Formats: sequence, C-alpha cells, structure tokens
Amino acid sequence: MADKIFRVNMSDLSTSVEDVPQAWAGLGGRGLTSNIVAAEVPPTCHPLGPNNKLVFAPGLLSGTNAANSGRLSAGAKSPLTGTIKESNAGGTSAQFMARCGCKALIIEGQPKDDKWYALALSSDGVTISEETDLVGKGNHEVAESLKAKLEGKQGVITIGPAGEMKMTAANISVMDPDGNLRSNGRGGLGAVMGSKKIKYITIDPKDGTLDIADPEAFKAANRAFAKSLVDDQTSQALKTYGTNVLVNVINEAGGLPTRNFTAGQFDGHDNISGETMYDMIKERGGKPSHNCHPGCVIQCSQVFNDKDKKYKTSGFEYESIWAMGADCCVDNLDDIAEADSLMDDLGVDSIEVSVAFGVAMEAGVLDFGDGKEMCRMIKEDIGGGTPLGRILGNGAGSVGRSFGVTRVPVVKNQAIPAYDPRTVKGMAITYSTTPMGADHTTGYAVTANVLGVGGKVDPLSKEGQIELSRNLQIATAAIDSTGMCLFIAFAALDDPNCLPALIDLINARYGISLTGDDVTELGKSILKTERAFNQAAGFTNADDRLPEFFYNEPLPPHNLVVDFTGEEIDSFWDF
Amino acid sequence: MADKIFRVNMSDLSTSVEDVPQAWAGLGGRGLTSNIVAAEVPPTCHPLGPNNKLVFAPGLLSGTNAANSGRLSAGAKSPLTGTIKESNAGGTSAQFMARCGCKALIIEGQPKDDKWYALALSSDGVTISEETDLVGKGNHEVAESLKAKLEGKQGVITIGPAGEMKMTAANISVMDPDGNLRSNGRGGLGAVMGSKKIKYITIDPKDGTLDIADPEAFKAANRAFAKSLVDDQTSQALKTYGTNVLVNVINEAGGLPTRNFTAGQFDGHDNISGETMYDMIKERGGKPSHNCHPGCVIQCSQVFNDKDKKYKTSGFEYESIWAMGADCCVDNLDDIAEADSLMDDLGVDSIEVSVAFGVAMEAGVLDFGDGKEMCRMIKEDIGGGTPLGRILGNGAGSVGRSFGVTRVPVVKNQAIPAYDPRTVKGMAITYSTTPMGADHTTGYAVTANVLGVGGKVDPLSKEGQIELSRNLQIATAAIDSTGMCLFIAFAALDDPNCLPALIDLINARYGISLTGDDVTELGKSILKTERAFNQAAGFTNADDRLPEFFYNEPLPPHNLVVDFTGEEIDSFWDF
Repeated sequence: MADKIFRVNMSDLSTSVEDVPQAWAGLGGRGLTSNIVAAEVPPTCHPLGPNNKLVFAPGLLSGTNAANSGRLSAGAKSPLTGTIKESNAGGTSAQFMARCGCKALIIEGQPKDDKWYALALSSDGVTISEETDLVGKGNHEVAESLKAKLEGKQGVITIGPAGEMKMTAANISVMDPDGNLRSNGRGGLGAVMGSKKIKYITIDPKDGTLDIADPEAFKAANRAFAKSLVDDQTSQALKTYGTNVLVNVINEAGGLPTRNFTAGQFDGHDNISGETMYDMIKERGGKPSHNCHPGCVIQCSQVFNDKDKKYKTSGFEYESIWAMGADCCVDNLDDIAEADSLMDDLGVDSIEVSVAFGVAMEAGVLDFGDGKEMCRMIKEDIGGGTPLGRILGNGAGSVGRSFGVTRVPVVKNQAIPAYDPRTVKGMAITYSTTPMGADHTTGYAVTANVLGVGGKVDPLSKEGQIELSRNLQIATAAIDSTGMCLFIAFAALDDPNCLPALIDLINARYGISLTGDDVTELGKSILKTERAFNQAAGFTNADDRLPEFFYNEPLPPHNLVVDFTGEEIDSFWDF
Repeated sequence: MADKIFRVNMSDLSTSVEDVPQAWAGLGGRGLTSNIVAAEVPPTCHPLGPNNKLVFAPGLLSGTNAANSGRLSAGAKSPLTGTIKESNAGGTSAQFMARCGCKALIIEGQPKDDKWYALALSSDGVTISEETDLVGKGNHEVAESLKAKLEGKQGVITIGPAGEMKMTAANISVMDPDGNLRSNGRGGLGAVMGSKKIKYITIDPKDGTLDIADPEAFKAANRAFAKSLVDDQTSQALKTYGTNVLVNVINEAGGLPTRNFTAGQFDGHDNISGETMYDMIKERGGKPSHNCHPGCVIQCSQVFNDKDKKYKTSGFEYESIWAMGADCCVDNLDDIAEADSLMDDLGVDSIEVSVAFGVAMEAGVLDFGDGKEMCRMIKEDIGGGTPLGRILGNGAGSVGRSFGVTRVPVVKNQAIPAYDPRTVKGMAITYSTTPMGADHTTGYAVTANVLGVGGKVDPLSKEGQIELSRNLQIATAAIDSTGMCLFIAFAALDDPNCLPALIDLINARYGISLTGDDVTELGKSILKTERAFNQAAGFTNADDRLPEFFYNEPLPPHNLVVDFTGEEIDSFWDF
C-alpha cells in the first residue's frame, strides 16, 4: 500500500486522502512535520487560530518491526513558544498509523461552533464524529474508556482538560500497549488540538502491514541494530533505573538545578533518585522496566505503584522528577508520582508545569518543598481552570510574567529542563539555539559532558561545546525523522555498528541507498527549515539567548556562569 | 543654572549630579529619554531586573512659561512590550524638575533587600530615604498625604499598588496643580519604578527659575504661540467637552471598536459621549475645563463629580471611556468614572486594563456590559493581587494568552486604543510601526482621516496613509521632546504661524537657531534610535504587524479589513 497524506479540515468537517508530494517522499517524523508546517502554516499566524495546522507523522521506520521505531511526531506552530514545534512520543499510534498507509495526518481549520469532535483513522482515511461523552474528562478516563470500547486494538491520541482549555503547557497523550499514557510533551501542542476541537483520535490498523523492499536485508540489519542497543551500557542502566538514574549523576556533577535554578545540587537527591525509585518499585510490586511501544528493547519506562501497591504512574522520567523534586525542593517521591499522575491526567507537560511551580514558589505563591500543595493546585487550579490554574498551565514564562519574577528559566518561553547550562555548558548551546525553545532532547550534550558517551568534553568549560551541540542537533533531527527513540543515540555514539545498521534498515525498507552523509544532510536541512520558519515568524539571534540571570548569577557548587558570547552562540549556525 | 543629569543607583543607594554629555545637550523629553535608554540599557535585559533604567526628562521648554510646555517624559525598556518606551504626562513635575536644573533623572540598579524607598529631588540633587508609611497605599492617598506634607509646593511622581506588584499595565502618576492625578500611562513603566523599589519621588523647585537666552524674543514667540492655540477650533472643542468629544465623532465614522473589536459602532454611544458628560458635569457642579499643568491654555481636563456632587475623577479621557464603554459594552458613565478612579488609584493604564477587560469578557470571565463587576474586579482582584488580578493587571495580551483568546487587539503586546485600524486606516500604520507598541498618540492619523485637520485622507482607503503616519510620527517624536502637550498639533497642522512660533520659543530659550528642517531631522533621528534599540532587543518587521484578525474579520458597518501588505507597512521606514 502506497503511503498517503491524510487531511482533515475542521472548518468544513471534510477529509481527504492525497498522494504524497515528491518533496516529502523521503521524509518521516520530525523531518516531515517540520516541512509540512513550514510549507503550509503562515509563520505569523495565531497558533490557536484557524490558520495553524496540527500534523502527526510516524517515522520512516515506524510500522516495521525495527527495534525502537515507534515514535510519533506531532508538529505545529507552538502556542507556547511561537516557533515551529516538533514533539515526539512512543506508544502504539505511530506504528498503527504507518500500517494504515498514513504518512502524515494534517489537521487544519477550526470549527465555527462549540462542538467537540473525535477522529477515526484507518486505511480508508479519516472520519469525523461529534464527541460529547468524553469531553472534559481526564486522559486516564479517556484511555480506560477507549481501551474498553476498542478492545485495546487501536491506537489512541488524546488531550486532557488542559488541552481543551487551550493552556499552552497542554500536551498530547498517546496510549502504550497496556493502555497507559505517553506524551508528546513539549510546546503546548495539546492546545492546538484543543483549538481544533478534537478530543481524541483513534487509529485502527486492522491487519495492515507495510511493504519492505528487501525483507532479508531488513531482517539482518534489524538483528545488528537490536544487538547494538541491547549491548549498550547506558541502555542497560536505563532499563534498570529508568531515566531517573540521572538524579544522582547530575547532582554529583553539580548541574541539578535546584530551588528554581539557584543551586546545582539538591540535599534531598537520594530520596528521589533512580536507585531509591527502583527499590520502591520492587518493594511495591511494580515493574522497573516496561516498553512504551512494541519492539522497544531498552524499556526505560516502568510501572510505579503507590504505598498500597496500586498503579500510580509510568513513563516517570528524570526530567519530570527533577523538576517537581530538586527544582521545587520536594523530596518525597510519592508526592512527585501523584503530581505526575495528575499532570498526565490533565494533559500538561510535566517539565513545563513543574518548572512553572518552581517560579511560583519563588514568587511566594506556595512554599518550596510543599508537594502536597503542588498536587492540590494541579488538581483544583489547573484542572478547574481557575485564574491561577491558567497562569500555571501556561507554563514557566507565564508564571514569571504574571508575578513579575525575573529569574525565569525559559528560552523562547519554554522551560529549561534538568541540566543547568552553567555547569553542563554544552546544554547552554542546545537550549539557546534549538528552533524548539529550550529542549534537552534536541541536542543532548549531557552525553559527552557528563556521561562520557561519544567522547569527553569538559562540562565546565565552553571549549568544544558548540561543535558538540551542533553535531548532536543535526544527528537528532535525523533520528527524530526515523521514528526511532532518541535513546538509540547512546549505542550510536559508542558502537560503530549501530548507525550503519540503522541506515541499512531505512535502505532495506524503501529500496534506496542512503549514506551516512545523506543522513547528516537530512538533519541539517531539517534544522535550517525550522529556523527559516522561526525567522519568518519574527525570531532573531536575540532570541537565541539564555535568560539574563544565567550570565550574572554563579551557580553553586562550581560557581560558574554562562560565558558564551552572542557571536559564539550564533556560530552554531555555521553549517 | 546649567542643566545637569541627576543619577540614582538603587543597588548601592548612591546618587550623583553629572554634566550633560555633548550628545544629549540638544535633547529633551522623549528625545532624551530614548537616547539615554538606547545608550545605557542593554536591549535584551529583563525589564524588571537591575539592568533596566528608568529615566525622567522634562521637555526642552518645560520650566519656562511657554504655553502647554509641562509634559514629563518617562522612558525605559518596557516590561509590557519589551521595546524601548516613552510615555509622557502633564502635572507639575516637568516644570519643577526643569527649575531644579535637572535635565534628566536616571534611576538604575535595584535594591537587594525588600525595603521601599522615596526620592527627594531638588536643585541640590537627589536624596534617598526609606519609605514605609505609604507603601501599599493607593495613589489618591499618596497624593493627599504628600500634598498635605509638602503644602502643595512640590511635584510628586508616584506608583500605586499595581506598580509595587510589578504589573505590566502599571503606570506612573504625577500630581496636577490641584493634587489630582495625571499618568504616564502606557507601557508599564510603573512596574519598572516598582522593580526599583521606589514608591514616590518629590520634586522641590524652591525658587528655581530658568535662564532664557533671549527673554524678549521668548515673550513674543509665546504670545504668538498661545494665540494660535487659543484660536484653534479643535482646541476649543477639547476645552468644552474634553477628549471625550470623540465618542460620537468616531462612532459616526464607524471606527469606534465595540465588544472587543467586533463592531465599529456602539448602540450606547450617546450615554457615554462628551456631550452627555458635559451635561452631567455641569449639573453636578464639576468643571468641564481644567488645566493639568500651569500654563495650559487648552484645558482638556475636567472635574467629574458623582451623583452626590462629590469629586470622582479628572483627566477622564476619550480613550479610557471608549475602552471601558464601547469596547466592554458598558453604557453607564458613572460606572466608567468609578472604574477610572479605581484604576488611577491602583496605578494602572486605563486603556490597557480596559481593553484587557474586553478580552476577558470575550473569554467569559465576566459579561459584556457589566460595569459593576468590572469595578469589583479592579478593586478586589487587581488591587488584591489575586491571580485574576495579575492576569488583568498585566494587560490585554496577558488576558488573551491566559484564556486562549485569539481576538486580542495588541501590537507588540500593547493594547490598541480607540480607533479601529480597519476603518481609520492611517492608524493601522501608526499602530504597526511605532516603536512603542500600539499607541494612538505617536502618529495621530485621526486628524486627516476623520477630523479634517491638516488635510483630508480617506480613512477607508489605504491611499496616502503611510505618508500621513510617517509625517505625523516624525513630528510627534519632535514635539514629545519639547515638553509640549501633543494637542498643540491641532493648531500646528491648521495654523501656519504655530510651528514657527514653537521653534522661535526653543531658539529664544537656548540662544540657538533651529530651523523647521532641524526639527524634522530630530524627529527622524529619535524614531531611528528607538527602532535600533528594538531591533537589538530582537524585534523585526514581523512585529510591525496588526493581529491576524484585523486582516480576516471585516468590521461593521463598513465591513473592511486591514489590507496593507507587509511590504507597504515596512515602507514606512523609508526615510
């Protein structure tokens, strides 16, 4: 079955299935969403108005049985940052969408009435129906309800009440194989889906499969690729402790932003660490390892149970735990798990909103360390859409502006995640320059800066950081186009067999002959396309800067500031 | 006495009196504040952080007895717009400051503790003292208290609770000769003063006078100038009905933005018009005409009493009355006066906050037309600093972002005032291009578009509007540097004797020989300086645009949209 573009117009409730334009034929995932947004969305449009478009695209390898290929990209102009945006997540939707022959789903327009709708996607195209029952419901209930109704056989993409209320920290959630939630977390794309009045999308793969141009070559490449992942040491640590293995590592490095980015180490780090979490999970009968999509061999997810051994949350990530933990000085993992579950249910980015709480604590809205009050505010204020809830649900920048706080850790209005750029200096470049607004995943310099993966670059010096971030951002843009989980990067950086195997997979799937250079060119081209959109939207080099306080306030314990000049940062784009 | 620069550093509580650098010698008012901000403020600094500076400057003619020369300019990087900002007001402070030999007061830095301070300015310089009594008090109480303490002999510059809370719609208020309030309204400069922890500034002129280089020529020029103002027809209308004479005029023109900019005429216009207001003032023993500073011959201000014939408000302007009235569909002038008085007391821009209410009404926070609820929210929410109050007190853009509204009438995040740019097309150019964010005063194309002053340019066509706005913006930047009230422009546009007399005044004051061309060059230079600051802060042509809905939603009754192309708008800067 040839891949098609599925298009939905919410202004007149029409749908169509279109041939793929030649320019998009070799693209998938982020490469495709960013190119579609760049081609079809006016850069200066209001992100929540009818001229923005929401695009979903599986990666180039999604739908195959290639290991770890189940990421779904979502793209639009972001209501949080005003930039182009791509955010990807695991779950089953990417694979099912690909098996429907859907290369991308483009949702445009906006209903003129106040009705809510659901989309049903299959290989026949998309149908639109009015939805009433699940409107206003949390993601947990939506997932439960649809899992039961669809007998767990379909993919689900959904927004929670935050997306319905068009909060700019609203995310989009997808279901994993067990019906738990994963999220396209960053950039407020849930608000875009809400602005189009779509509560959820179901994806029925029926018995759809994909054509593989060279099945034998594909099988061989997949074996080599999976072995590379399974053998990788970092991947093994992720399997045991999840991403939260990083709390102690980054704390030790002095780069764990604490108390709204005023210190680099957190006294309570042991209480919220991956090691402590592992013990709690084992003791309470949870699962330390869990795959978010079929075919994942890293399994960094987990099932975290509460004190009564009942399911509390999964996909419980380091960056969220850091944000609610160290950044808000909450050292109780159960409070953090409760907050994480509540945020998943409301459908908000747990990095953005937790950093927002750190700023709110600095403003005196609640006390640092008060995890219980944080949970109450998430539930009652954000969930209830109170004015305070709107301020928090619109992210860290919103809290800063609302309360006149000047220490607001955002770039392009998106919250800076769990690695302080004063102490992990490669991240200063990534946060500053990525077209996405502050985002650790776009160029994860923590690898060479702290983890000793892919070489070593002193995290405390600016030497070599621009080149490091540039290489990682280019590679990441390409990986984000394959449908691959970014965590394949650890193996790719350490094992010379990994990346060739990945390229072999793509070649075998499509009967083409990409080279490593082609992949690099793809990454460069994606970054340049994204940047051009942002420039047309009004962004300049002045937006490629960290907030002032990172340049002026030394961070204990290393007492360093960000010391890149504007010219140095801008040289990132010399490629 | 030679003019000096008075400088206050709030970080170390030091003060100094400095010679005027040569580059600033010929500047005053806006020309001076904008040049100082451009020279000394890092364009990318946080507007509420220690690196922003707040500058006050009387105009070139302030302190003399030239008619209408009492405007005080305040400048800084705006926390509302992120642009350079100048906002001017009448009152007595400009004249007193000039008589102290203070060409500009530059306030920099920020206290590291939580204390509040007051500044006392005299010809000896500035002294800083801790202030406790009046912190948290409204402007009315501050004015009353200081008027009594200083026996009405000093100028007062103050912020209300909104400025203390660093709300970005916070203004700076000055006292008029009767101790009533006038405001440097726009751009949130009150928040900058609050961020520097200065509650108020007193200005003691003692018996200071100014040197006039050629007293006889000055006297002659002043006679000619004042005659020109007094004879002008528009000025006479302003004297009788105040600026509110415009409600019926702009309603008739179909350009009175109504119900959050969804219509151009307001059914209730008669109830809130200048004519109705005049009758109410007369009936209640108020004053239809009142001067906001000594020497004003236009006297557009007034004293508006309540039903019990007690003082309610003054400086009750068309743009505020329009915003609370037509834009919020409130047709009760007493409710509007109450809201105006409350906003003056809290110290917020009554244009910005009222347009914010219009957006809040569209969001369903309160009902269109509910003036009583608007007053309650101003008092309890903005005054109390509740989360809703912060959202409202941060302006129209803040309300739009907080509640996900897409019809948000702002440019560079500043609320568009009382002339719809779809129907008064010259204003589309002014709002888009002025470096200040949407501001009617910077290039008041209403003159030729609607009032038939300074020629006629069809308001419904884009023909001739760019040139009109350009000429007005250049002239206005120059006038804003003289200390003159902008309302001299009506006479200047209609009477060929007016502008030469103004130039003669400046020449006689300083013993120089400016020509009309010099004045034009000054205006151009100010605009270019301001724009360069904005560009360094990250603004581009993409920011010189009206919100999307003005291009897409036709406005009844003329059913026009804004139809300037980007290239046309950008050609404004071809000078």
